[in-house]
Amino acid sequence: MKKNVLIIGAGGVAQVVAHKCAQNNDVLGDIHIASRTKAKCDAIIESVLEKKAMKQDGVLLAHQLDALDIASTVALIKQTGIEIVINVGTAFLNMSVLEACLETGAAYIDTAIHEEPDKICETPPWYANYEWKRKDRCAEKGVTAVLGAGFDPGVVNAYARLAKDDYVDDITDIDIVDINAGNHGKYFATNFDPEINFREFTGTVYAWQNNEWTENKMFEIGHEFDLPVVGKQQAYMSGHDEIHSLSKNMGSPNVRFWMGFGERYINVFTVLKNLGLLSEQPVTTAEGQEVVPLKVVKAVLPDPSSLAPNYTGKTCIGDFVKGMKDGKPAEVFIYNVSDHKEAYNEVGSQGISFTAGVPPVAAAMLVASGEWDVKTMANVEELPPKPFLHILNHIGLPTRIRDENGDRALDFSKSV
Amino acid sequence: MKKNVLIIGAGGVAQVVAHKCAQNNDVLGDIHIASRTKAKCDAIIESVLEKKAMKQDGVLLAHQLDALDIASTVALIKQTGIEIVINVGTAFLNMSVLEACLETGAAYIDTAIHEEPDKICETPPWYANYEWKRKDRCAEKGVTAVLGAGFDPGVVNAYARLAKDDYVDDITDIDIVDINAGNHGKYFATNFDPEINFREFTGTVYAWQNNEWTENKMFEIGHEFDLPVVGKQQAYMSGHDEIHSLSKNMGSPNVRFWMGFGERYINVFTVLKNLGLLSEQPVTTAEGQEVVPLKVVKAVLPDPSSLAPNYTGKTCIGDFVKGMKDGKPAEVFIYNVSDHKEAYNEVGSQGISFTAGVPPVAAAMLVASGEWDVKTMANVEELPPKPFLHILNHIGLPTRIRDENGDRALDFSKSV
Repeated sequence: MKKNVLIIGAGGVAQVVAHKCAQNNDVLGDIHIASRTKAKCDAIIESVLEKKAMKQDGVLLAHQLDALDIASTVALIKQTGIEIVINVGTAFLNMSVLEACLETGAAYIDTAIHEEPDKICETPPWYANYEWKRKDRCAEKGVTAVLGAGFDPGVVNAYARLAKDDYVDDITDIDIVDINAGNHGKYFATNFDPEINFREFTGTVYAWQNNEWTENKMFEIGHEFDLPVVGKQQAYMSGHDEIHSLSKNMGSPNVRFWMGFGERYINVFTVLKNLGLLSEQPVTTAEGQEVVPLKVVKAVLPDPSSLAPNYTGKTCIGDFVKGMKDGKPAEVFIYNVSDHKEAYNEVGSQGISFTAGVPPVAAAMLVASGEWDVKTMANVEELPPKPFLHILNHIGLPTRIRDENGDRALDFSKSV
Repeated sequence: MKKNVLIIGAGGVAQVVAHKCAQNNDVLGDIHIASRTKAKCDAIIESVLEKKAMKQDGVLLAHQLDALDIASTVALIKQTGIEIVINVGTAFLNMSVLEACLETGAAYIDTAIHEEPDKICETPPWYANYEWKRKDRCAEKGVTAVLGAGFDPGVVNAYARLAKDDYVDDITDIDIVDINAGNHGKYFATNFDPEINFREFTGTVYAWQNNEWTENKMFEIGHEFDLPVVGKQQAYMSGHDEIHSLSKNMGSPNVRFWMGFGERYINVFTVLKNLGLLSEQPVTTAEGQEVVPLKVVKAVLPDPSSLAPNYTGKTCIGDFVKGMKDGKPAEVFIYNVSDHKEAYNEVGSQGISFTAGVPPVAAAMLVASGEWDVKTMANVEELPPKPFLHILNHIGLPTRIRDENGDRALDFSKSV
């Protein structure tokens, strides 16, 4: 059954979401895009039309919206007959948008954990601070809310669940590795909103180890991974959304997240952090102006969406899952490799936006089909992974498996 | 003859100037300190009184003043009977303060070249852009204006002149070297106003070589100098005020300035510059706030005056002067070594502020005595160097000489 979609946000990820919704508008129906700056929505629509991405004739409209204003979002949802909201705006909006869904009954999908502008690295598990407090209300009202349905969190949660379903019993370790082996040609740039990017790494690095939360500093614990396609890559233990739900839902005593960083990133990050320029707390200039340093850093850095045309190379993101199977130690690496240039050619965005923007569209298609329309709040690992990965196989993010039986595409020919 | 002094500015250098004026108030008379923030002047006065620095009973008063407002400065000069203004406020004030001196007849002394907030690295020679345009008016009105009377520019200009007078004929090379081998114990800090500090290095590095201006980038040309006390030190060719007057006044085909930098400084500077965070041009944040990045960097860095209590180690600043003497190649290094801790113990400031703040007081004493009261505008190398260096020998900045005859104190016992 076709269901109309509202995309909130108009950055690089929203552009991918719009293209993929358009390519699948036989399933998803009308497409609406809303952001604080309508011109950015217009530009996305222009890009969709230019690529002739609409699978069939249909509605594709831009709206100005301050999504912090719940009443405005409610009004837009009602006026346009929206049944699924894909929220890929800033993470500061999440709870406001979810409230609008609770009020209207529209399904809610996001790709990142909620954040409050003035707080960094709250107590784990982070989902318990905002999202899960609203779980009972979602169930009462029968509102589907799929949390963290990007790549990481999102697809990597489905990989963990797939590993548990088919490859490893008694899981002891889930190590999620995110490597961007691409090159944007700039001195320095972040691949998505610098404000959100830096905030991920300025606080304590929480990991779930031996069934408890451990705390480290960023870049304190590094490890070299030998990965398909991108080869040997140095990654660092980082705090990340999915650790917080997987620690609760997977029964694994160890859940860690590893992010790859080049020396340039680490150096720039270290300088900015040590100087206090990544602070979200305002400072006062000699002239008496109150300024949040992080917002100034964001203002001087390249717009992440500007990187796409010259981005080359590949990403590799996946889960190492260890445990026992049939009484023997078992390990599997479930992963995807994406190419920046191919992503740009298809949807006008770089690979990081592509990997983040395709999965919520797959999630929306599953809500539309009913397979994921669970009428409550769920993290991705609580939902059946195979329909999700099956769609992703067909819309640009194929899954591969590497274990003792070799390195191969995930085969859906037998069971989906 | 005693002459009343007005100190403009209330930073680390102003603190040194106030202490040294107080220690010599038998020559200088009343002491007034004025700044935009009167509380900072009050704190300096408190420090002077605490150290019992006043040589004899006398006036020591604080004033609130916006020195960009010429009429206000004129009024303060008239009201307090000021005959000498020592301007150690921000370099943006210089021409406004000089205009107030031209209007009142008070002598003017500064320590740095005038700057306009929105311009960096104007065409050389820099003094011709603002200061020297007012030279004729100084002469007409009989107003003494001593430009650049800190250490560098200032004492190093007197060293160049001393070299020419006594040590080297037919000068071919003047290489000024400024090494701070001190340690403030912070991750990163500038030793004086970060805004002025960074502006020195963000533009083109102008040097005077083979009788013409050459252009390089910062940190492009480095050289290791083997110096007294501080040993081997890496320094980089930098643009600096004194090159601009010495190139005109000394007849040397080569005038270069070399500043010592540690790896940490270079890395932080490089990161900030490449990101655009040292820009004096405003950027607009996503929220629509207009901000000058450099002012935000200044706001997050340690206040230079806060470094003093824990500063250890020494500075070495001097001139390598090469040429011929009596038909043979000759070379001399004229220099001073200062100690951060000793400076702090005496005047409550670190060594960089000390070396910058003591010389303008010596200049003021020479204006008061008449020896430098030249009734026109002059750069330091145009004035007799020996009385200046003689006073400095007695008030904290002794001069030393190193040449083929060894390393020794400058001896004034024969001729001053």
